[in-house]
Amino acid sequence: MKKLEHIGIAVKNLEEANLIFARLLGKPHYKVEVVESEGVRTSFFKVGEIKIELLEAIRPDSPIAKFIEKRGEGIHHLAFEADSIEVKMKELRDQGFTLLSDTTKSGADHKDIVFLHPKTTQGVLVELCQEKK
Amino acid sequence: MKKLEHIGIAVKNLEEANLIFARLLGKPHYKVEVVESEGVRTSFFKVGEIKIELLEAIRPDSPIAKFIEKRGEGIHHLAFEADSIEVKMKELRDQGFTLLSDTTKSGADHKDIVFLHPKTTQGVLVELCQEKK
Repeated sequence: MKKLEHIGIAVKNLEEANLIFARLLGKPHYKVEVVESEGVRTSFFKVGEIKIELLEAIRPDSPIAKFIEKRGEGIHHLAFEADSIEVKMKELRDQGFTLLSDTTKSGADHKDIVFLHPKTTQGVLVELCQEKK
Repeated sequence: MKKLEHIGIAVKNLEEANLIFARLLGKPHYKVEVVESEGVRTSFFKVGEIKIELLEAIRPDSPIAKFIEKRGEGIHHLAFEADSIEVKMKELRDQGFTLLSDTTKSGADHKDIVFLHPKTTQGVLVELCQEKK
């Protein structure tokens, strides 16, 4: 992986979390985006070369709602940028990592994304992402 | 905060985790360091401008042992670099954040560190760190 692209943080209330993270990071979020397919509303902050993505569930069956129900608010995933997500997926599969889906899906921030199963990465939910072409 | 310095990940077995993260990140860890005062053995990987720190408990009363007992392996903390940790601590305290200690302590990687209480940061354990003078 060449670069951490963003860190995803699951929150209960996006407005409240936006205020707190603006105070913590010393600058406001620069965008809000809904990803219907994932059942989330997200906001983005920039810190140096990486982004922090806050994620709020918009439906009870959203993965974020389930995460919070089970573990409470907190860090949800680490996303690494791939030059070619298809190549990287094959590479990681060949090395024994388990992907959560066979194909990429559409994520926030104009990205194609795929997740690795946390059982193969020490409990860390790892996302691969690539700028949409 | 100007920059994310590192991401701390709690693991059960540092040797095993080192192999998996080397495979995932495409390069090996570049150092191992024991921090006796925190009861941890750590290893470091570089990805772009940030570091990934794997943390293994060396004592049952280590915060990492307690974390794993409660939540399993996974992302433990996010560490942000401060130009002046004392100034930043005052600033954050004034803004309503709770620090876990009044003074800094000695961390891995030649850093003075202090943690914010996750109850004031949406369940995220935030570390402030500064290169030792």
